[in-house]
Amino acid sequence: MIIRYDGSRYNGWQKQGNTTNTIQKKIEEVLSKATNEEIEIYGSGRTDAGVHAIGQVANFHSNFEIDKEKEILGCTLKEYLNEYLPLDIRILAVCRVSGRFHSRLTVKSKKYVYIIDNGEVADPFTRKYAYHYKKDLNINLMEQGASHLIGEHDFLGFSSIKKTKKSTVRKISDITIEKKEEKIHIAIQGNGFLYNMVRIIVGTLIEVGEKKLPPEDVKRILVEKDRSLAGPTVPPTGLFLYGVDY
Amino acid sequence: MIIRYDGSRYNGWQKQGNTTNTIQKKIEEVLSKATNEEIEIYGSGRTDAGVHAIGQVANFHSNFEIDKEKEILGCTLKEYLNEYLPLDIRILAVCRVSGRFHSRLTVKSKKYVYIIDNGEVADPFTRKYAYHYKKDLNINLMEQGASHLIGEHDFLGFSSIKKTKKSTVRKISDITIEKKEEKIHIAIQGNGFLYNMVRIIVGTLIEVGEKKLPPEDVKRILVEKDRSLAGPTVPPTGLFLYGVDY
Repeated sequence: MIIRYDGSRYNGWQKQGNTTNTIQKKIEEVLSKATNEEIEIYGSGRTDAGVHAIGQVANFHSNFEIDKEKEILGCTLKEYLNEYLPLDIRILAVCRVSGRFHSRLTVKSKKYVYIIDNGEVADPFTRKYAYHYKKDLNINLMEQGASHLIGEHDFLGFSSIKKTKKSTVRKISDITIEKKEEKIHIAIQGNGFLYNMVRIIVGTLIEVGEKKLPPEDVKRILVEKDRSLAGPTVPPTGLFLYGVDY
Repeated sequence: MIIRYDGSRYNGWQKQGNTTNTIQKKIEEVLSKATNEEIEIYGSGRTDAGVHAIGQVANFHSNFEIDKEKEILGCTLKEYLNEYLPLDIRILAVCRVSGRFHSRLTVKSKKYVYIIDNGEVADPFTRKYAYHYKKDLNINLMEQGASHLIGEHDFLGFSSIKKTKKSTVRKISDITIEKKEEKIHIAIQGNGFLYNMVRIIVGTLIEVGEKKLPPEDVKRILVEKDRSLAGPTVPPTGLFLYGVDY
């Protein structure tokens, strides 16, 4: 399934513990009703509370005969899901995949987009879909800072994880920064992302754009792996999981 | 004042009766607090419940010394308003105008934009800012239909008013229809608009785009002044008061 959602009202994609107000849970409930089975879905990764998705991917296992969906449901499975899901979660596509496919384990790359509302007065229409930051930001310096992140690096300094035995090496293949009227779009593509990594990268690039931090310091944070040298973790509202490649 | 608002949560700009949940009221409360006077504001026109504004204009009379705003308030009047108003109402500008200025009576022209989400699946991010209508719409036919509306006409057939002694003649100077990805933007500029006029024009152009109504029938509705020949009144969610010229 390809899924688009406005994360504003939810406690994220998935959450440990008793939280039921998650996007995963909402979809599982409707899917279970449609298929008459207990369905568990596997997302390409979690998104935190307030984070949005343009193209989240999730898979599930079921004996539901998708070839006969119209006979069974009176409409396609996709239409059924969109009929019963809340309006802030939409299913863009449903299709059968190979048994070897796994939404998380077979990911080749993911793209995130972070939107900064750089207007003097916050745009009321994007108050839940952008981070309002009104200080002047120099896009050129931000691009210089971002260039140091391209390639394979240990991103421990750009994450909220403490010590870990797992590898914190990831590869970022592309970062683009574009100003469209008063909105700044930062798009980051990579083979994987550590916890809070995109939000800390954006927080750091904002400090670079504001001339609080020289662009070369981005490299230093990578080398020293020191979270305290990087910028703040910017709010989830501006973050979109844009798409996933397999 | 130039005001931008997300009308989703409000009972419109102004409402007769006891309704207090209006945009006008919210602004009057904060302005009265700032100026220590009982302030009444005059908008360029009402917007209905759920209708948005990119550039609404309103004026008010006050003895507040705007030249000394920083001394009196510790910040500009605009900053004060944005500090105390809800995030879905933003003040873009405040300035002193001539005593002859009146937001409604001295309007030269107004521009409205209506957004149709023409995607197969509704975009969750514009569910409050567009009208989801998924059937195929022929933009060319819609433009042909719209062309009949340009100029000075009696728009009684395109309004929800019954008989009236007041003139229902208005002049539309421009209509543009643009498809941007899955969104259709219909922009209408004119010297004034009757009650529900934009929403009925859009409802009619949708019928033209769907080939339910030939483009020439738009002319017939003008001539026969018959509301029942026109299309439905589309929902307020897609409607934006874009700007006002004086």
